[in-house]
Amino acid sequence: MQTRPSNEILERNTRIVHDLLNRQKIIENLAHQQSNRRQDLVDSLVHRQHLAELDQQLKRLHSADLGHVLETLPLDDRLRIWRIVMDKRGTEILLEVSDAVRNSMLGAMTETELRQLLAHMDSNDLLEIADDLPEALLAERLTQLSSEEKQRVQEALTYRENTVGSLMSIEMVQLQSSLTLEQAAQYLRAQKDLPENIDKLFIVNHRHHLVGILSLQNLVLGNPEQRLEDVMARDVVSFTAEDNAEQAALAFERYDLVSAPVVNQRGQLIGRLTVDAVMDFVREKSNEDVLNMAGINTEEDLFASIWSSARNRLTWLIVNLFTTFIAAHIIGLYEDTISHLVILAALMPIVASVGGNTGNQTTALIIRALSQGQIQQDKTAYMYRKEIGVSTVNGLILGTIVAVFTIVVYGNVALAGVIAVAMLITLILAAILGLTIPIFLQKWGRDPALGSSVILTAATDSIGFFVFLGLATMLLIH
Amino acid sequence: MQTRPSNEILERNTRIVHDLLNRQKIIENLAHQQSNRRQDLVDSLVHRQHLAELDQQLKRLHSADLGHVLETLPLDDRLRIWRIVMDKRGTEILLEVSDAVRNSMLGAMTETELRQLLAHMDSNDLLEIADDLPEALLAERLTQLSSEEKQRVQEALTYRENTVGSLMSIEMVQLQSSLTLEQAAQYLRAQKDLPENIDKLFIVNHRHHLVGILSLQNLVLGNPEQRLEDVMARDVVSFTAEDNAEQAALAFERYDLVSAPVVNQRGQLIGRLTVDAVMDFVREKSNEDVLNMAGINTEEDLFASIWSSARNRLTWLIVNLFTTFIAAHIIGLYEDTISHLVILAALMPIVASVGGNTGNQTTALIIRALSQGQIQQDKTAYMYRKEIGVSTVNGLILGTIVAVFTIVVYGNVALAGVIAVAMLITLILAAILGLTIPIFLQKWGRDPALGSSVILTAATDSIGFFVFLGLATMLLIH
Repeated sequence: MQTRPSNEILERNTRIVHDLLNRQKIIENLAHQQSNRRQDLVDSLVHRQHLAELDQQLKRLHSADLGHVLETLPLDDRLRIWRIVMDKRGTEILLEVSDAVRNSMLGAMTETELRQLLAHMDSNDLLEIADDLPEALLAERLTQLSSEEKQRVQEALTYRENTVGSLMSIEMVQLQSSLTLEQAAQYLRAQKDLPENIDKLFIVNHRHHLVGILSLQNLVLGNPEQRLEDVMARDVVSFTAEDNAEQAALAFERYDLVSAPVVNQRGQLIGRLTVDAVMDFVREKSNEDVLNMAGINTEEDLFASIWSSARNRLTWLIVNLFTTFIAAHIIGLYEDTISHLVILAALMPIVASVGGNTGNQTTALIIRALSQGQIQQDKTAYMYRKEIGVSTVNGLILGTIVAVFTIVVYGNVALAGVIAVAMLITLILAAILGLTIPIFLQKWGRDPALGSSVILTAATDSIGFFVFLGLATMLLIH
Repeated sequence: MQTRPSNEILERNTRIVHDLLNRQKIIENLAHQQSNRRQDLVDSLVHRQHLAELDQQLKRLHSADLGHVLETLPLDDRLRIWRIVMDKRGTEILLEVSDAVRNSMLGAMTETELRQLLAHMDSNDLLEIADDLPEALLAERLTQLSSEEKQRVQEALTYRENTVGSLMSIEMVQLQSSLTLEQAAQYLRAQKDLPENIDKLFIVNHRHHLVGILSLQNLVLGNPEQRLEDVMARDVVSFTAEDNAEQAALAFERYDLVSAPVVNQRGQLIGRLTVDAVMDFVREKSNEDVLNMAGINTEEDLFASIWSSARNRLTWLIVNLFTTFIAAHIIGLYEDTISHLVILAALMPIVASVGGNTGNQTTALIIRALSQGQIQQDKTAYMYRKEIGVSTVNGLILGTIVAVFTIVVYGNVALAGVIAVAMLITLILAAILGLTIPIFLQKWGRDPALGSSVILTAATDSIGFFVFLGLATMLLIH
């Protein structure tokens, strides 16, 4: 009986595997250095003993934990472990790791190894990793399935990313509404292998149309002689395969669902969406938001090669670079002003930087609200009024602080006035842009987080420089 | 039978409530303008009819949906709806809305109304909203509970934020291990009110020590005459109330849990953690990460007053402002250089801005990895090598682009060399800082996301200006 927190154990196990790997590498290095000595035999014994110890340790790990360990290992170590466990637990482990890590592991396998691995997968497993498989191998494996199964997999593969169809499982229990509770329980007992996390039964009529659900709880509590159609709930939250997955996730959160039926346009049951798939999706999406805001396009394996990581991050850096050329051009327009009053060059980043931060605060709030469907169309006017109000208040406070700073350090009252006014104007414009950019991206069907921070900072920089230097030119240069 | 996607319906309902509210406001305005006319009576009838329609519409909404509607309404509209539904469904609705929105709703209630509301809450409901209640009222309500219940609530209230204890429910089913499956099912049937999302039974010995679990599925499938202790699973993922909630959430995701027992230090069962609470927590945390990175301290109600929003965002803006003073000071050191070559003022934000973005990419990746426990201590050296590698590659590429730009626009080859080298150095330093700041914040027991972007940008700005202007002074000014 394990009552200790599971994560302590996981952390210890992860550390043990890391340690074993490190020790093994030291031994291998030694063996390599001494390869022409008599010592060889002994070394190889020690080496083999270590491998056995590692093997033992890995056997003791739950597949989900092993998946976690693989995520925390650099590519070469990861593949070393993967080769040890591939044959026996390949399928389970592949289902536990992230897309990026799965890709790295599948990529290191030969065609023969892949073919062997696929041979042991059922249609639902195949479906889950299909995107990462070479097409030819997947097609080959599909021909070995029954035509019904093959059709189900092929249909499920057509659903686009971010739809319920791409998250759903095709494993499920469906029962005819005319059965009694006792018959339903008997049917369940007769199944060898029930899907995981089963909390409710999906009830269909003779044409496979979903007509209701019965929670396992009510199956236990109900009168065994009653028919399903008399006790089932008819008011069911269900989804279609084309439904937006983010919307479905919000519904899972709102109604505290554990599983929900997925139906086709005709109302026929075609799959099952479960809370574990939804939770993985929510986690992935929120990671994506954090990365996208910072200008990283796609999820990145922590231990990906330098080249692939560099490529993944370059796009938005180049966008960023070109936007700074605009800012540089704007500053260039005021070269004369700056050469008259060089201190302006020192002060101008203050306005731009605080402007960027103000805008980013607004953007972060809006992205969060958009992703949770909290902004109704008719409320955008309200949002603008509010954000302008907030930035006015903070612009006045920060403008005052920066003015006092300018007077104390540079003793220039006129300059202090200019920078305070520039701060206020820039902050208000930054708030407006902070709202407009994500809303605009969303209306254009883009992810509102993707690059919003890069675009925003570019705009607030240019605006900050322009407002500050423009005001200074008008008011300070005679 | 509802087979349409539930979110379409929710959106339509939300829109209807918004529309009804708008129409009602127009009527109220008219009534106000014409208040001294004979029209009054008719208007008030129309008004009352509208109120009835609104009432009808609200009655049809699931409490979770009503919670969503309340989240999407500005404060005055929100309170208008809240007053209508408060009496009948106050408790359920309070449990559905976010902390910030709940606070706004509780804050608008009189003491008498609050007292009435609390009178209808059971100990578990009380526990969930206890943090938002006036202490005196909570204490008063607690005295009305049985001493056992009171003790459980008071104990549960001592758990700090971000612990399993703060998320767990004290409602659960515990069964003695000596019972048979049939007796267990009978016991369940005898309960009026089972907790929601029940997927497994917690099995204890006579001293309330958790000894195993039995899934509802196995209760259905098993032989009714067997004893629980013979069929229960003894290898249980359990938590203690002091466990870190983020770690627990990761365990829920890894093992696809629906519920898990919570025990005290002595192994006695004290509560139950369910996937819906975990999912809400994951959503909340990921929102927090997005907001914290952008320099917003605490979750903000989208429709909070301008004053409270401004205050919530001011802290990090002031930190930001003071860090820009440092950057301004560094630029000030090179006033002479700038006055010799004013174009440096135009080019210096290029280096600083791209540096900031590079560092932010690294920070976003690390924050994500830290929150998922993917970085082992012994891998930090590896991470530094990799991030320095990535920033070197991108520094060379972006440095080349900016050099070409400088030659084409300003025809100055020496300046082009200076800015390219400054770009490379700044990007490498930015990557190092992008790793160091979140890791350092985490080691100090802070949230690695909190303000990391503000601190990082401040550092990269100063570094960018210093490297670029310093190199220019050494190499270009004679």
